[in-house]
Amino acid sequence: MSDFAVGLDVGGTKALALLVARDGRVLGERRSQTPHDEGFGAGEATAKVIVELVGELCESQGLDPARVPVGIGLPGMMRRDGHLAFAPNLATASGADLGAQVRVALGSSKVYCENDANCAALAEHEWGAGRGVRDFVMVTLGTGIGGGVVADGRLVRGRSGFAGEIGHMVVEARGAPCPCGGRGCWERYASGGGLHRLTREAALAGRLGPLVAELGGDAKAVRAEDVTAAAARGVTEALTLMREVGWWLALGLANLAAILDCGHFVIGGGLSSASDVVLPAARKYLGDLVEGYGVRPTITITTSLFGARSGAMGASLVAFTGA
Amino acid sequence: MSDFAVGLDVGGTKALALLVARDGRVLGERRSQTPHDEGFGAGEATAKVIVELVGELCESQGLDPARVPVGIGLPGMMRRDGHLAFAPNLATASGADLGAQVRVALGSSKVYCENDANCAALAEHEWGAGRGVRDFVMVTLGTGIGGGVVADGRLVRGRSGFAGEIGHMVVEARGAPCPCGGRGCWERYASGGGLHRLTREAALAGRLGPLVAELGGDAKAVRAEDVTAAAARGVTEALTLMREVGWWLALGLANLAAILDCGHFVIGGGLSSASDVVLPAARKYLGDLVEGYGVRPTITITTSLFGARSGAMGASLVAFTGA
Repeated sequence: MSDFAVGLDVGGTKALALLVARDGRVLGERRSQTPHDEGFGAGEATAKVIVELVGELCESQGLDPARVPVGIGLPGMMRRDGHLAFAPNLATASGADLGAQVRVALGSSKVYCENDANCAALAEHEWGAGRGVRDFVMVTLGTGIGGGVVADGRLVRGRSGFAGEIGHMVVEARGAPCPCGGRGCWERYASGGGLHRLTREAALAGRLGPLVAELGGDAKAVRAEDVTAAAARGVTEALTLMREVGWWLALGLANLAAILDCGHFVIGGGLSSASDVVLPAARKYLGDLVEGYGVRPTITITTSLFGARSGAMGASLVAFTGA
Repeated sequence: MSDFAVGLDVGGTKALALLVARDGRVLGERRSQTPHDEGFGAGEATAKVIVELVGELCESQGLDPARVPVGIGLPGMMRRDGHLAFAPNLATASGADLGAQVRVALGSSKVYCENDANCAALAEHEWGAGRGVRDFVMVTLGTGIGGGVVADGRLVRGRSGFAGEIGHMVVEARGAPCPCGGRGCWERYASGGGLHRLTREAALAGRLGPLVAELGGDAKAVRAEDVTAAAARGVTEALTLMREVGWWLALGLANLAAILDCGHFVIGGGLSSASDVVLPAARKYLGDLVEGYGVRPTITITTSLFGARSGAMGASLVAFTGA
C-alpha cells in the first residue's frame, strides 16, 4: 500500500488538493478555481485542472504522479465507476467519465472517484468528529446540502453509489422549487442557499426592517451574508431568521434519525462555520422533532473537525482504500 | 443450530405465530387477539399470549418450548436487548422488557425481539420479494407505516435498534398532527390511517359527493373502506383519492431513494393488498419525484411475497440467527 495519496475536493467554484500520509498528516496543499469553460467537452477542463494539481503536489515531494493513488471528491451523483451521472452544481462536467479522463492523462490506474460529502463522512469517521461512532450522518451545509451516511461503521453507498443525497429529501410537499426539478427539498430551507431564499422572502414580507433600512430601504438588496453578520451583532430579526434555519436543519436531522437511528451528526460546510446561531438552535429544536426523543440516548450534533478540508481528506482515504 | 423456530408478529390488534423450518417452510400457525388489559403490568398480558402461542405450536409438533428459539416482532421502537422502548400502537406493552418476561416464562434463553417491519424486511430479503437485492426498503402500509432498511445486503438497525421508523419522516412541515407528537409525518398521508384522514377531509370538503350521497348525505360517515371499495368499482372521486395516496407514497419512497440509493421497494401491509390503485399510482409518480431519476437504473416497487405473514416469518429468522 502506498504511503501517500492525493485527495481532491472539486466543488462548483473551487478545487482543493491535498497530499496526505496514511496517518492523516497533510504534507502539501494546492488550490485552484474550478473551470467552467463550455468550449471543452464534458469534464475536460475539470480533468485538466485535477491533473495539474496532482502533478504540482507530487513534484513538490519528488513523487511520481503515475504511481501515487488519487481520490477525487465531486458534487452530485457519482457512479462508483468514476462516471459523474448528475451534477447540477458542476454542470460542465455532468455526464463525464472523469475517472477515465484523469486516469488516461496521468497514465495511472489508481484514480478513484466518490461523492464529496461521502468523502467528508469517511474523513470524519477515520480521523475526525465521527471517530469511533458507528452510526452517524455527515451533513454539509453549502449552497445545497450534501450527506454521507455511516451505518454500523460502514459508509452507505447504495446501488449505484448515489446514497447520501439527503438535501433532496422533501420536507415540505409542494414547497419551494429546487434546481433538481423537485419541490420542497430540504436544501431549499436549511442550507446557505436556503438562508438566501428565506432572507429574500423575509425582507419582502417586511420581517427584516432594520436590515432593509440600513441598506437604504431596498428589500431586494438584503443578502444572506447581511443576515449572518447582523445575527452576530445580535440584531433580533436576523437572529429569528437564523433560528428558523436551525429549525429546518433539525427537521431534516430528525427525519434521518427516524430512518437510520443515527446518534450523531457531523455538520460541515460554509453555513456551519459562518454562524454560531444555527447549530445551537438545531440542538434545541431536535428534541421536539425526533420521534420518541425521550427514550433514545442523547443525539449529538458537532461541527466537522476538518472543515473545508474534510472532502479532500476523505478523498485521500478513498484512494488509500482503493489502491 | 435448531431445525425449527417460532416466529411471532405481535401487532396492535392481532398476534400471529408460525413454526418455521430453516428453509422457510411453515409447519404450523396460531393466531390470537392482542390483549389490552390495563390491569396487568406493562407487557404482562402480551407476554402471556406469546408464551401460550409458543406452547401450542411446539406441542403440536412434539417440540420442547424451552429449547426452540423464539423470535418476536413488535411494533415501535424495539431495543436490541428486548426492551420495547416506545410503542404508541401497543400502549399496554410500551416500556416493558418483553424479551425478559418471555424468557422467564418459557424457561428459555433463546428469545429474541426485533421491530416488526425489520422482521418483514429480513423475511423478504431471505426468501421473498427482496431476495438477491442488496439495497431495498421494506415498507409496511398499515394504520401507520413501518420500515426495514437493507443496505449492501445487511439490515440497518442503528445505534439502539430503532432504525426504520420511516413513517415518522416528516414530508409536510407543520402538516397533519401525528400520535407520535410530531406533525406532517409520512404515515399521516400514505398509510391506511392516512387514507382514513384524507377520506374525512375530502368528504367534508365536498370532494366525495357520490359516496356521501350513497351514505344518506352524511359526510362524516364515509370511511376509508368505502373509498377502497368504490375505487375498485371505478368511482372517479374514489380513484382520485387513492391516486393521491399513491402520490404521497411515492414522495416518501423518493426521499428514501435519495438518502439510501435503494433500487427496490417491497410494499406490505393492509393497504397494499386492499387496493390495486395505490401502487400503480406510486410507480407512475416516482419518476417525477426522485432526484435524477433519468440517470438512475430503474427503481422497482413490488408487493411483499408473504403478505400478512412476513413479520412472523422474519421473526423466525431473527430466532435462527440469534440462536
